[in-house]
Amino acid sequence: MMPVMSTLSFFRQWFEKHQDQIRDDYFHFLRFHSISTEPEFKSEILLCADWVSDYLAKSGFKTKFVETSGHPIVFAEKIVDPAKETLLIYGHYDVQPVDPIELWESDPFTPTERDNRIYARGAVDDKGQIFYAMVAMRALADQDIPLPVNIKFCIEGEEEAGSTGLFLALPENRDLLSADSLLVVDFDGYNETTPAINLGVRGLVSMDVTVTGSKSDLHSGLCGGIAYNPNRALVELLAKLYTKDGSIAVDGFYDGVLEPTAAEKAAYPPQHDEKYYREQFGIEAFGAEKGRTLQEANIFRPTLEINGIGGGYSGPGFKTVIPAKAVAKISCRLVPNQDPARVGNQIKAFLEKHCVKGMKVDVNLHSGAFAFRANPTSKLALAVSTAAAEVCGKACKNVLSGASIPVIAALSSELKLETVGMGYGLPTDQIHAPNEHFDFRRFELGFLTVATAIGKL
Amino acid sequence: MMPVMSTLSFFRQWFEKHQDQIRDDYFHFLRFHSISTEPEFKSEILLCADWVSDYLAKSGFKTKFVETSGHPIVFAEKIVDPAKETLLIYGHYDVQPVDPIELWESDPFTPTERDNRIYARGAVDDKGQIFYAMVAMRALADQDIPLPVNIKFCIEGEEEAGSTGLFLALPENRDLLSADSLLVVDFDGYNETTPAINLGVRGLVSMDVTVTGSKSDLHSGLCGGIAYNPNRALVELLAKLYTKDGSIAVDGFYDGVLEPTAAEKAAYPPQHDEKYYREQFGIEAFGAEKGRTLQEANIFRPTLEINGIGGGYSGPGFKTVIPAKAVAKISCRLVPNQDPARVGNQIKAFLEKHCVKGMKVDVNLHSGAFAFRANPTSKLALAVSTAAAEVCGKACKNVLSGASIPVIAALSSELKLETVGMGYGLPTDQIHAPNEHFDFRRFELGFLTVATAIGKL
Repeated sequence: MMPVMSTLSFFRQWFEKHQDQIRDDYFHFLRFHSISTEPEFKSEILLCADWVSDYLAKSGFKTKFVETSGHPIVFAEKIVDPAKETLLIYGHYDVQPVDPIELWESDPFTPTERDNRIYARGAVDDKGQIFYAMVAMRALADQDIPLPVNIKFCIEGEEEAGSTGLFLALPENRDLLSADSLLVVDFDGYNETTPAINLGVRGLVSMDVTVTGSKSDLHSGLCGGIAYNPNRALVELLAKLYTKDGSIAVDGFYDGVLEPTAAEKAAYPPQHDEKYYREQFGIEAFGAEKGRTLQEANIFRPTLEINGIGGGYSGPGFKTVIPAKAVAKISCRLVPNQDPARVGNQIKAFLEKHCVKGMKVDVNLHSGAFAFRANPTSKLALAVSTAAAEVCGKACKNVLSGASIPVIAALSSELKLETVGMGYGLPTDQIHAPNEHFDFRRFELGFLTVATAIGKL
Repeated sequence: MMPVMSTLSFFRQWFEKHQDQIRDDYFHFLRFHSISTEPEFKSEILLCADWVSDYLAKSGFKTKFVETSGHPIVFAEKIVDPAKETLLIYGHYDVQPVDPIELWESDPFTPTERDNRIYARGAVDDKGQIFYAMVAMRALADQDIPLPVNIKFCIEGEEEAGSTGLFLALPENRDLLSADSLLVVDFDGYNETTPAINLGVRGLVSMDVTVTGSKSDLHSGLCGGIAYNPNRALVELLAKLYTKDGSIAVDGFYDGVLEPTAAEKAAYPPQHDEKYYREQFGIEAFGAEKGRTLQEANIFRPTLEINGIGGGYSGPGFKTVIPAKAVAKISCRLVPNQDPARVGNQIKAFLEKHCVKGMKVDVNLHSGAFAFRANPTSKLALAVSTAAAEVCGKACKNVLSGASIPVIAALSSELKLETVGMGYGLPTDQIHAPNEHFDFRRFELGFLTVATAIGKL
C-alpha cells in the first residue's frame, strides 16, 4: 500500500481523469424513474436495479438480485479472503415521488448541472450517495488495489417505501448478508466544510387514526348542534396528546427513556440554534419540551408528530358539511429503550380512552423500528472518521440524527454489525422536495472518503 | 270561485289527466347540467334558464332575465290588477355538484323512476320543488281561474353557489321584485305524512383559517422536536373554541342571543329524538351544549362547526412530514340578534389571540347572513298552512329550521315581505348527495298545496 497522503492524491487524480465518465454514469443512474411507491414504475425500477448490478459487476463484484415481496435488492460481493473481515455497504436505488412537479425548475429525471450542482430526484438521496461508493469500487478495481477486507453491497429498492421487502427478506438472507461491519451511505455531512459520521438514529412508530361519527356526511345546518362533529372530536382528542409543557401526555410514553448524561451532551453539542432554523426554514414557533434545548429535543427525546389531518372539505370554496369521519396520521420518533410496538399500543389506548363517548375511534398501527446507537470507537467508525478528516482537511464530527432509517437497527442487530452512517448531504439539498440537488464537489468528497476509508480497515 | 273541496278535487283531476306531460317536462328540466359552481356548465345553465322562462311564459307570465355578476335570474310576473297584493315565489334552477359520481345508481342527469321515485340531481332541490309551483301556474292558467293576487317569480341560478349574484342585484331590482309576501319553495315537509311551513332559518358566517409554521414542509425526523408542528398548533387552537360544556368559548359569541321562551319551546317542540338520529344517520355522539335538548341546540342556539381540516399528508400510505401549514374551514349557524360580521370578527380575534406564539394565523371571513324569523299569522302563512292541511288531510306544522338560506333574510328585510317557506322534501331524499330522489306523490302534494293556497290569498 502507498502512504496515506499519496493514496488520497492518487484517488483525486483518478477522479479528475475519469470525471466525464463518472458524470455520464451518474446522470444515467438518475434518469431511471425509480419511484418505489408508484406501481407504474415497476418495470423501470427493474431496469434501474439491472444497471446498478451491472455497474458493480464491471468492478469485479459477483452480483445477484434478492427477490422480495416488493422491488428486488441488488446484492454484490467481492470476497478476497474468507478469513478476512467483511464490510457491508448499504444504500438504496429507489427515490421519493416528485410532486409538486410544477415547482421543479428542470425535469426531475433529466439531470441538469447548474453552478456545479446536479439537479435531479435522487441526486443526493440516495442515488448520488450510493453511487460515489460504487465509483470508489471502480477506482479500486481499476488500479488493482488490494482490498484489506471483503466487501458486500446491499442496495435496496424500497427505502422510500418503508423497506418492507428487506425487512421480510432479512431472516432468510442472514448468511448472504453476514458481515462484521455496516456502512450506511445515506446521511448528511456536518455542514458545508465539515464532515460527519452518524452514530445513531431515532426509531419510529406510525399509525392511522380514524374518528367516525355517522354513516354519511351530514348537513351542518340541519344536523348542526345535534351531531358531535368528528372534526371537533379529532382536534379535541389530538390536542390532549400534549401537556402544557409540550411533553407527550400518553401514559407510559417515556418509560425507559434515559436522561442524556453530561458526557453524551458534551459529545453531541447543539449543532444549530434558533437563529439557524429561523433563517433556514422560517420557523418562529419552536416545539421542544419546556426546559429542553433544541438539540436534546431533536436527538435525545422522543417526539409525537401529527403528520396529517383531514376531515370534511378543505379545498377551494366552501362546503357546509359535518363529515362522517375525520382522519389523522401520527408518527413518533423514538429513542433507545422505547419499543415501537409498546409505544404504538400506548397511544392507541390513549386515543380510544380519551375520545368523546359515542364516537368510533380506529387506530391502525404500522410496523415500527427501534432507535439505534453505534459504537463511536469501532474500527469502521475510526476508519471513516479519519478518512473524512483527511479528505476534508477538517476534523470529522460524530453526530446523532433525529431522523430514522428503520432498516439500520434491524440489519445492525440481526446481523450483529458494527455500524456507521456517512454521507455528504446537507439540509439545503432539497431531498424529498422539488429541485433536489447535489454539489458535484461534495460528490467527490464522498468518493474520496469511501475509497480511502477502505484502506484503513 | 268553486268551494274549497271541489277546488282541490279539480286540481287532483287536472294533475291526473296531465301527469304524463308533467313528468316529461319535469324530466326535461332535470336533464340540464345546471351546476352553478362549475364553470364548464355555463352555457347549459343559460339553456336551463331559457327553458324555465319559456315554461312560465306559456302560462301567461311576462318574463325577463335579470343579469347578475354570475348566472341570470329568471324573473316572471302576472299582474292581474296593480291595486291587488303581490305574491313573490322564490326558488332556484341550479343544482349541487354530483361527486362522488361513482355512488350514483343511475346517471344524475338522466332522470329515472323507480318505485314512484324520480332519481336525479335536483329532483327535489330545487328543480322538483320550484317546478311543481310552476305546474300550479300552468293549471291555473289552463282553466282561466282568476287570480286573487298578482304573482311574481324569482328563480335564481346561484343558490348552491351562495346567491352572490342575487345579493348584488337586489338593490337595483327592488321595484321589479317588490311584493307583499314571499313564498320560498325550498323546504322539507314535517315527515312522510305531515306537511309543514317554515317560519325561520338560522344565519351563517364562515371563514377559512390557515396556520403557517415554516417556509416549506419539514422532515419530521430532522426537525421533529424542534419545529412546532402547524397540525398540532391547529388542533390545539380549534379545541380551545369549545368549553367543557360544549358551548362556544369565543368572547361575546352569545351576545344578544335570547333564551327561547316557554311559548316558543311549546310552538316548536322536539321533532326527533336521539333514537331517530341514531337510526337514520348512525349518530352515537351528540353535540348539544350541556342542558340543552337537541331541538333547542338545532334551532334556538348558534353553532360553530369545523367543516374541514387539512394539513400534511392524509391519503393512502404515509408521509413523515411536518407540514408548512394547516388549514380549517369554520362556519357558524346564527340565531336572531347575531350579526354575522360581528361574530366572524370575534372568532377571528379569538383564533389570533390563542394560537401558539410564533405561528402565523390567517383568518379569511366570507360574507354571511342574518337569521330570519317569519310571522306565523301572516295571510300567506295561514293560506299555505290551511292549503297543506287540506291537501294532506292532516294539520300542518309550523317549523323553524337549523339550516340557512342566506338570501331569504335579505329578500325579506330589503323588500319588507311577509315570508313563508314551504316544501315536501324529506331528510331521506339525499339532497346534495348521491341518488337524490323525490317521490312523485309528494311532488303532487306540492303542486296541490301551491295551486290551492293561491285561492286563499
